[in-house]
Amino acid sequence: MEKYQDAALSPRERAEDLLEKMTLKEKVGQLNQRLYGFRIYERDGENVTFTEEFREEVEKMGGLGVLYGFYRADPWADKDENTGITTGLSGKAYNALQKYVLDHSRLGIPVMMSSECPHGHQALGGGLLPVNLAAGATFDPEALKEGYEACGRQLKSGHVELALMSALDVLRDPRWGRSEECYSEDPCLSSRMAAAAVTGMQSEGVSCVAKHFCGQGETTGGVNASAARIGEQELREIHFPAMQACCDAGVDGVMAAYNEIDGVYCHGNPWLLRDVLREEMGFQGIVMADGLAVDFLKNTEGDTLHAGATALKAGVDVGLWDESFSRLGEAVEKGLVDEKLLDEAVLRVLELKFKRGLFEHPYMEENMLEAEEAGINAASLKLARESAVLLKNEKQVLPLKDHYKKIALIGYHAADRYAMLGDYTPPMPESSCVTVLSGMKNEAPEGVSVEYAMGSGFNQADGAELEKALKLAKESDVIVVAAGGSSSRFGGAVFDENGAVSKESGSLSMDCGEGMDSAMCHIPAAQEELILELSKLGKPLVVLLIAGRPYCIEEIEKASDAVLYSFYPGPMGGKALADLVYGNCCPSGRLPASLPRHVGQLPVYYNSRSSSTAAYRDMESLPLHTFGEGLSYTGFSISDVRTAFVETEEKHLDVDSGIRVSFRIKNTGDQEGTAVPLLFSRRLQGTPVPRVKELKAFTRVELKAGEEKEVSLTVKRSALDPVKVPGRRTDRADRVLLMLTEGKDECWKEEVIL
Amino acid sequence: MEKYQDAALSPRERAEDLLEKMTLKEKVGQLNQRLYGFRIYERDGENVTFTEEFREEVEKMGGLGVLYGFYRADPWADKDENTGITTGLSGKAYNALQKYVLDHSRLGIPVMMSSECPHGHQALGGGLLPVNLAAGATFDPEALKEGYEACGRQLKSGHVELALMSALDVLRDPRWGRSEECYSEDPCLSSRMAAAAVTGMQSEGVSCVAKHFCGQGETTGGVNASAARIGEQELREIHFPAMQACCDAGVDGVMAAYNEIDGVYCHGNPWLLRDVLREEMGFQGIVMADGLAVDFLKNTEGDTLHAGATALKAGVDVGLWDESFSRLGEAVEKGLVDEKLLDEAVLRVLELKFKRGLFEHPYMEENMLEAEEAGINAASLKLARESAVLLKNEKQVLPLKDHYKKIALIGYHAADRYAMLGDYTPPMPESSCVTVLSGMKNEAPEGVSVEYAMGSGFNQADGAELEKALKLAKESDVIVVAAGGSSSRFGGAVFDENGAVSKESGSLSMDCGEGMDSAMCHIPAAQEELILELSKLGKPLVVLLIAGRPYCIEEIEKASDAVLYSFYPGPMGGKALADLVYGNCCPSGRLPASLPRHVGQLPVYYNSRSSSTAAYRDMESLPLHTFGEGLSYTGFSISDVRTAFVETEEKHLDVDSGIRVSFRIKNTGDQEGTAVPLLFSRRLQGTPVPRVKELKAFTRVELKAGEEKEVSLTVKRSALDPVKVPGRRTDRADRVLLMLTEGKDECWKEEVIL
Repeated sequence: MEKYQDAALSPRERAEDLLEKMTLKEKVGQLNQRLYGFRIYERDGENVTFTEEFREEVEKMGGLGVLYGFYRADPWADKDENTGITTGLSGKAYNALQKYVLDHSRLGIPVMMSSECPHGHQALGGGLLPVNLAAGATFDPEALKEGYEACGRQLKSGHVELALMSALDVLRDPRWGRSEECYSEDPCLSSRMAAAAVTGMQSEGVSCVAKHFCGQGETTGGVNASAARIGEQELREIHFPAMQACCDAGVDGVMAAYNEIDGVYCHGNPWLLRDVLREEMGFQGIVMADGLAVDFLKNTEGDTLHAGATALKAGVDVGLWDESFSRLGEAVEKGLVDEKLLDEAVLRVLELKFKRGLFEHPYMEENMLEAEEAGINAASLKLARESAVLLKNEKQVLPLKDHYKKIALIGYHAADRYAMLGDYTPPMPESSCVTVLSGMKNEAPEGVSVEYAMGSGFNQADGAELEKALKLAKESDVIVVAAGGSSSRFGGAVFDENGAVSKESGSLSMDCGEGMDSAMCHIPAAQEELILELSKLGKPLVVLLIAGRPYCIEEIEKASDAVLYSFYPGPMGGKALADLVYGNCCPSGRLPASLPRHVGQLPVYYNSRSSSTAAYRDMESLPLHTFGEGLSYTGFSISDVRTAFVETEEKHLDVDSGIRVSFRIKNTGDQEGTAVPLLFSRRLQGTPVPRVKELKAFTRVELKAGEEKEVSLTVKRSALDPVKVPGRRTDRADRVLLMLTEGKDECWKEEVIL
Repeated sequence: MEKYQDAALSPRERAEDLLEKMTLKEKVGQLNQRLYGFRIYERDGENVTFTEEFREEVEKMGGLGVLYGFYRADPWADKDENTGITTGLSGKAYNALQKYVLDHSRLGIPVMMSSECPHGHQALGGGLLPVNLAAGATFDPEALKEGYEACGRQLKSGHVELALMSALDVLRDPRWGRSEECYSEDPCLSSRMAAAAVTGMQSEGVSCVAKHFCGQGETTGGVNASAARIGEQELREIHFPAMQACCDAGVDGVMAAYNEIDGVYCHGNPWLLRDVLREEMGFQGIVMADGLAVDFLKNTEGDTLHAGATALKAGVDVGLWDESFSRLGEAVEKGLVDEKLLDEAVLRVLELKFKRGLFEHPYMEENMLEAEEAGINAASLKLARESAVLLKNEKQVLPLKDHYKKIALIGYHAADRYAMLGDYTPPMPESSCVTVLSGMKNEAPEGVSVEYAMGSGFNQADGAELEKALKLAKESDVIVVAAGGSSSRFGGAVFDENGAVSKESGSLSMDCGEGMDSAMCHIPAAQEELILELSKLGKPLVVLLIAGRPYCIEEIEKASDAVLYSFYPGPMGGKALADLVYGNCCPSGRLPASLPRHVGQLPVYYNSRSSSTAAYRDMESLPLHTFGEGLSYTGFSISDVRTAFVETEEKHLDVDSGIRVSFRIKNTGDQEGTAVPLLFSRRLQGTPVPRVKELKAFTRVELKAGEEKEVSLTVKRSALDPVKVPGRRTDRADRVLLMLTEGKDECWKEEVIL
């Protein structure tokens, strides 16, 4: 037995031994993730055969490092129930794949699988959670952790070692089509959610590749993958915390971001990927490239040979689809990069393979679990319920009262399940989703009828449909409109080479998602007009907005009696919304990102620096709705607020103190509900310039009617101090203003001397 | 005689001697510019008396360092022909002021006067040039230099030692109300114009305080004085060059900018004001604070005592209006700042006073020159003619043909002279300005009649006026509309404590200027509607847009046959526009900044980095009009382009080579005109990420009909290499693409290996 085959040794020891035995070609092969996994096979009935391209690649590289997207199914992958790998075929297909690789690896190194899981598994039978922005709206890291534990069970059962998970992007410009993949505009909330997701996934024995590092939420004008022009202070305060939180949670992988920051591509940035990520943050895992991103370095490096060398030097360990990383052997031979750096990357990959138990258990004994079996749907429903944000509820039209016997349900979004799911979504059979239409019908109280009319297409007005909808609305007691945006790729999208939706796509039933950046941030005009038409009827009008980004909804909101804003709530979204509309549960979502009045007002994130007091002459200063806002069916009051200095666990700084803010919170209404108290701080002096407000702690408090609870929120001293940029003056926080809010209300504030 | 009184010695030697004799109080007094000069006197007929506040300040400080705005007249200053210092009173008033200061200075140190001159002197009788953005549109640094020579003659004659001149801000967001104060969105054009302005002014013996340093054009969302969030690479590439150019031109002063950059206030940033400005750029002059800006440091420093110390340490030499700098003595005594730093600042102020000859000639012998005498109006007219940008000229409606016998001139802007002048404008008697209305009437060819109707107010539609205008238009052969924005403070503005227009101002006839940031970037709706109404008549429609920023004009342009876009063209603007409209001269302005289609598209500057190829799904990628665009009444062709390596003068780098691009340019039309060939480059590889295009050289070529000339443009190697950020990888430019454009046309491009 070779030393590396000894399972009693540590993964590191085994990897070091194995590395010594490898040729340059084999090493390069381990960093290779060039293949599109969904294209390496053909399915004929129950038979899966592998393509010539796959077999050549394995032979050429003397094995295979990582395989991307073997299970991936979506319109870009062009795989569905008939052509792709179903859960029923998964064991057989995967085992055949693994066997082929092992048979062609001189040292018997198994392949490691990576799979998209930005909010659930993008595979046939894959279970989905609400998108990240919805998860952010829950302010419930624990529920998200449970969601990813369920996802992790499914991925683990499918022998996926690496889950590619959106976790690091911070939403700073809602024009960005990938806004939905961000947890929030706030670094504190983003960090808590990201750490929860990583912890949940990895607790099931699946390594998480957190994406993307770094600054992708800050690209110019919200245009995908364009330049992030921010400085280091902004980068460290807003975009680093989620990465640090993932490192603290022991994340095994990170994906570098497409964008450049202030002129330097992330994939070619050794300061970012080595000095900061490994040295400062203590990251120990693998850095994966984004799709084709290393090849994009040709823009600065000239060709793929130099691009690969630059990326490896910068700290990228594993490529993705690019040619550059397959040329690393040539780069070493030509002296463009030291073989030691290559060895370090290979060591990390091998170590992870040993850690994941691949050498001991390269094969599957059973098939991949179904979503339901893994418990994904239950977790998804919980998150969906908690994520909807009630922005308006005039005359308390919600929850719908008993005397509304006839409900007119109108709108494209009530019936298109894909419009609830977000980007990176596999084909989902009708039976696996609850649309708003089915949810509203299923959950309707006795004696209440729900009739449906579409009213308009996603993008296009339709006179006949409008007539039907108006007629239905007139005959009903209340109108419920389901409208919004969509990231569904199931409506004729054309794709760029990296799988983003191409701008060449014609008229689609989508306006959001990767490659779908919007200059206007309005829901499609046809839908907006439908709502305005319906509002003229004078009937109670409830609007359920379903969205992948903050939209400008001022006109819609004015026209409506109630607005419930849901970031794509996932496959159980229709049930969740029905539960909320009927009052089976109470809305508790809070805005994870501010909603602008108009794009001319961007940026509108709440935590701007306090260096300006100016305002536009032609627009109000504040956004339409600010981070943290959200109404309830009941009311809450906060009282008896006390502050105390306490010792807190402190991992990264030598400061052990913190502040605990304790208070009593009471449900003052007559129904059960969940309060979401948020603790903000503002430094009252010191450099860098303090921000207007910064979230520091939050919690969810479930309260029965009339119930009161004691709650405390703790914030560390280090979280109140400003983030240090090396070489710059950074003052400690001497005086801070602490603020407690619930929903729209500021409940308490107090100056504290530290 | 004391040594410092010996005019044979150098200013430095004299200053050093004087400094030794000064008390701490007297030193602090020299850095003091707390008074608002326009408030220190009262005028009663021909008599000028000084206020108690002034006399107390002089006594308290043991003299007076710098006095701001003694001549300032505008609605904020609340001074006009009857209450302010007219040219006829200037000698008497100034001499009385100076005498009072000298009489109360133990060592006989005269006061030095600073005065606003962002585009001419903001004083009664002060001459004005077109605003900077108009000057940028001329691409004619020589003409601007001549303009500032004329201004310099006026200021010198009024004993103004320090001209506060907008020179450094770069227009990166047209929402900013101070867009008009920028020369361009481009650093190369900005630098050339800034250096020309400084050279012109200082050649007349007046020191220029170039404002503002740094990054104010990059504030968040275009909101005045808010955070510039950019990184150092962006800062160095876009915002440093104009400052470097001013340093190379020997500028005597710099004003720090209100904003912070990435969390650090400019006024508290020693890296910016010392390391970069003095050490790297070789600046030798004085750094002046912006109005109250040092007090604004309370946000980080806690109080004005610490704010003053921090600003002095950071490199600010002279305060402005703030309390902080008057507390520097206390700060020294308490050990918050070393007296050495104070001495250095005092030395700079004293040296400048000696250099300006103040000790030898503290008094005026004659009064301040009138604008006309100083030659300002002639220079202003030349710039105005060259600055108008012809954006559309369908069916060649311009210049107006002989058969248009009846011209309907319509629009608010034709008759309000202040709408042509920009911000920082003194009261201007009607006789000193040529409005579009008087210009069009005065210059009308024989047999052509010009009739005027307002059509609408600045902000408000007016049914009766509209009727009159429509009637007039129907009876005419051609419609000329003068419309746009305005920075006129002469319509009821209310002011913030630093003189910016307050957002509390009600309905004003202004929408631009300091404090007037716009979220929408549209001209007032009433005016836009007027144009659309007039377009329905089917008559030839010429729109003269007068503006302080790039506006979104897509609808206006579609509705018009011709659009001539003028950034505030100054007091001679009406004559210049009439000359252009009638064809007395040919438009040669080129856009100094891109015009967005919609604010959702921002930012739209042409020189973005080449890191993104994505686009919005709901808007075209390109702005409506891009930097450098501009039509002519004639046509030009460029041929026989040749490149050659040449030795060029190189001041700051040890690279002496450059590239000369030579070509022939011909006027292919049948009338005289001026071509403006622009030479752009694009690096083809290397880090930092190359920009899409960068202006490197330009010239203006006057050509008679059919004439052809040989032209060459030279660019230094150092200007092709990327800007170095210490500590970051910066590759030399190995391969560049050179591009030559004229107007909208790309005439030539070639790859060059360096």
